[in-house]
Amino acid sequence: MAELVLLRHGQSEWNRSNLFTGWYDCDLTEAGEAEAVAGGAMMRDAGFEPDVVHTSVQLRAIRTANLALREMGRLWVPVRRHWRLNERHYGDLTGRDKAETARRYGEDQVKVWRRSYDTPPPPIAADNDYNPNDDARYASLPPELVPASECLADVVARMLPYWYDSIVPDLRSGSRVLVAAHGNSLRALVKHLQGISDEEITELNIPTGVPLRYELGPDMSPVQDIAVDQRYLMDPAEVAARAEAVAKQASGG
Amino acid sequence: MAELVLLRHGQSEWNRSNLFTGWYDCDLTEAGEAEAVAGGAMMRDAGFEPDVVHTSVQLRAIRTANLALREMGRLWVPVRRHWRLNERHYGDLTGRDKAETARRYGEDQVKVWRRSYDTPPPPIAADNDYNPNDDARYASLPPELVPASECLADVVARMLPYWYDSIVPDLRSGSRVLVAAHGNSLRALVKHLQGISDEEITELNIPTGVPLRYELGPDMSPVQDIAVDQRYLMDPAEVAARAEAVAKQASGG
Repeated sequence: MAELVLLRHGQSEWNRSNLFTGWYDCDLTEAGEAEAVAGGAMMRDAGFEPDVVHTSVQLRAIRTANLALREMGRLWVPVRRHWRLNERHYGDLTGRDKAETARRYGEDQVKVWRRSYDTPPPPIAADNDYNPNDDARYASLPPELVPASECLADVVARMLPYWYDSIVPDLRSGSRVLVAAHGNSLRALVKHLQGISDEEITELNIPTGVPLRYELGPDMSPVQDIAVDQRYLMDPAEVAARAEAVAKQASGG
Repeated sequence: MAELVLLRHGQSEWNRSNLFTGWYDCDLTEAGEAEAVAGGAMMRDAGFEPDVVHTSVQLRAIRTANLALREMGRLWVPVRRHWRLNERHYGDLTGRDKAETARRYGEDQVKVWRRSYDTPPPPIAADNDYNPNDDARYASLPPELVPASECLADVVARMLPYWYDSIVPDLRSGSRVLVAAHGNSLRALVKHLQGISDEEITELNIPTGVPLRYELGPDMSPVQDIAVDQRYLMDPAEVAARAEAVAKQASGG
């Protein structure tokens, strides 16, 4: 049986400012750092001892992993990072205020951009200050791989090769795996693992800083046929309250 | 031309307490954290942009790397960790007070254990509280690889395979490499790179938190034929003062 825990990063600076974030690389707030440490304590107390950690290449997920692993006394485990675990690219919305965007384009349009499975926001302009395409971490990628905007379906498509080619081999080799990533890259993975439909996934919110644990069988599907909210290493009522807060506030990752 | 920077971790809790540390896994002090951040600023200001970081599996080196890379805006680079970059194993001296040990065994004996090239301290007892052999990070190693005590010659012997097999391939592939490690594993590497004799290496002290930069040619030897103290990313007079402080205080890593 393979052990997998997913951890969404704690509050970031742009979560706090209520801006669409996506591929913009902001840091954690102090509250976000505390969430990461608390997530580490939950994993430690639950007896989860990861042998390897996978993260995106974004600061808020990397630091969440580092803070949690330090709390667990396991900062020494091997580390793998990949852009395929990044947050959804928010296109031209990147850096915009969520409330202002709703006033400008209407609540309905923003809801489509935020929650529709297959409608991406407008592409980010090349000269947008928040366009990460000049960033050194993406410089060696073929340009056609770097998105200009993504819907959740796009995230599923670019995340799954990393799941199959890098995470699954670690799980098959017997490693207990921690994945520290983002609201939408983790929703994409949960959709895959639990076989959630394109429609139902739009209603799923993953709270920040609360570890989500899976036991996987030889076919890499969950051993226990239970809902997502039964898998958190936290009291389900508190998880529900947190997920509700995420749904209300923002999902810009 | 290949670019390599070596960084010794900042002050650790046991550096401050003047205890022999070796493979005991203590954390950085606040002063050590500040040294790591300052080391990152020195690398950034010198225009060094690592593409990959190699660390030991010890907390003080890992955190030094993380703090320095965050300061450089490069926490996203690929990470490789290996026990072969660990500090020298101090054997039975691990956890002992340096001054007390000098009183008990005499200054001359302690100087031999600290500075002789090929005389290791007595082996650590299996039931020593500071024996790391039960530590999860070494659990998958064949027991004959886990040292019970090491002299610098032992560190050279166990570090060099990692240099040849992991760091050199990164350098050959064109990556700019940061190695965050320890007083003695870095002395071992500097000895190799500069062709320093067994006798002369006993006088070399590497200050904490000051990046040491090499440009290497296709044969992986330094392009410039200059002494170690000309290679630091810091004013040589200040480097000399810091190295002197290390020599006086302690070298327990």
